[in-house]
Amino acid sequence: MSEAVETPFFKRPRKGLLIVVSGPSGSGKGTVLKQLFAHRKGMFYSVSATTRAPRPGEEDGKQYFFLTHGEFEKKIDEGDMLEHASYCGNYYGTPRSAVEEKRTAGLDVILEIEVQGAMQVKKSCPDCVTVFIAPPSAAELERRLRGRGTEPDDVIRDRLETAKGEIGSADKYEYIVVNDNVESAENIIDSIITAEKSKTSRFVD
Amino acid sequence: MSEAVETPFFKRPRKGLLIVVSGPSGSGKGTVLKQLFAHRKGMFYSVSATTRAPRPGEEDGKQYFFLTHGEFEKKIDEGDMLEHASYCGNYYGTPRSAVEEKRTAGLDVILEIEVQGAMQVKKSCPDCVTVFIAPPSAAELERRLRGRGTEPDDVIRDRLETAKGEIGSADKYEYIVVNDNVESAENIIDSIITAEKSKTSRFVD
Repeated sequence: MSEAVETPFFKRPRKGLLIVVSGPSGSGKGTVLKQLFAHRKGMFYSVSATTRAPRPGEEDGKQYFFLTHGEFEKKIDEGDMLEHASYCGNYYGTPRSAVEEKRTAGLDVILEIEVQGAMQVKKSCPDCVTVFIAPPSAAELERRLRGRGTEPDDVIRDRLETAKGEIGSADKYEYIVVNDNVESAENIIDSIITAEKSKTSRFVD
Repeated sequence: MSEAVETPFFKRPRKGLLIVVSGPSGSGKGTVLKQLFAHRKGMFYSVSATTRAPRPGEEDGKQYFFLTHGEFEKKIDEGDMLEHASYCGNYYGTPRSAVEEKRTAGLDVILEIEVQGAMQVKKSCPDCVTVFIAPPSAAELERRLRGRGTEPDDVIRDRLETAKGEIGSADKYEYIVVNDNVESAENIIDSIITAEKSKTSRFVD
């Protein structure tokens, strides 16, 4: 038999996915993602860039890529920011090159980000996968926010309203993961990643 | 706190999925689906309708729904066949009502069918999920077809050509599952079902 026929019918995608995850405070997305990283191989947590000064103990490329205003604006101009925003006079954003490098190495990159940033990424990187993690109900959301027990009532009320506003944007995401149980939510995100890797559109070199 | 706020933000879809699975002889789809049914709950294997006579031991509604030619053609006219074809003077097809009944009951229906039927179902039931199970390579496909050891060379050659033709249609499916390992292929289909249930478009009553 010739060598040629051992050629696979379909080359598995070598490039990793970019998974964009949003969810309001109280959705429990931190815990869910932590569990996912503990159990699933080949994952990378995207590092943001910022112009704010490093705090004691922070390392460049670990908590953030620390850039000057000039460097950051150059990256924006060159199209190397998948998304960016200003906050308290500083830039924050996601460098495309850092994400692409990990994806090319075969890693699946998780980008945890708020709604507006997620929508920017969806535009600048159309093959990304968008996932919204939602708390099961307003009542449960309030219990979770109050459960921390440290915040005054008006702060809770504000967070609750912000969260509800964000939940109104869930329909802009491809997937909604209702987190009423961490293990089940983790399993769903794990399944989304596995399924997306088998999408016909990704079986191209 | 009022009852109202316990209302879930997102109602989980109650309706089951319709998963259309194709794969050539030698893809190993039978074994993969058998394992999936052994491990995953809430699954139903779609039963076809036919006008051919029942064979000894066959029960109506089990191996097939046995219909007269008149009954079958009436169902076609009424749009109650998701797909149908003639073979050796008899009709074979998938009754929509039987599939919908199971889906409404919350079951995920697997429909194992060849390429042309699958494409008909995709048209008549646009919310179905289409999955193509592929052998890893032509060489492995030939080994699997020969492995049965009972068929003459020209029969093997014919099957190989038919299989290759079918594999050329894989890009018409949403997902391609390369079956180089039964456990992994089963896990991918299981993940596809779980992920599809979390698609935002399905979170509607």
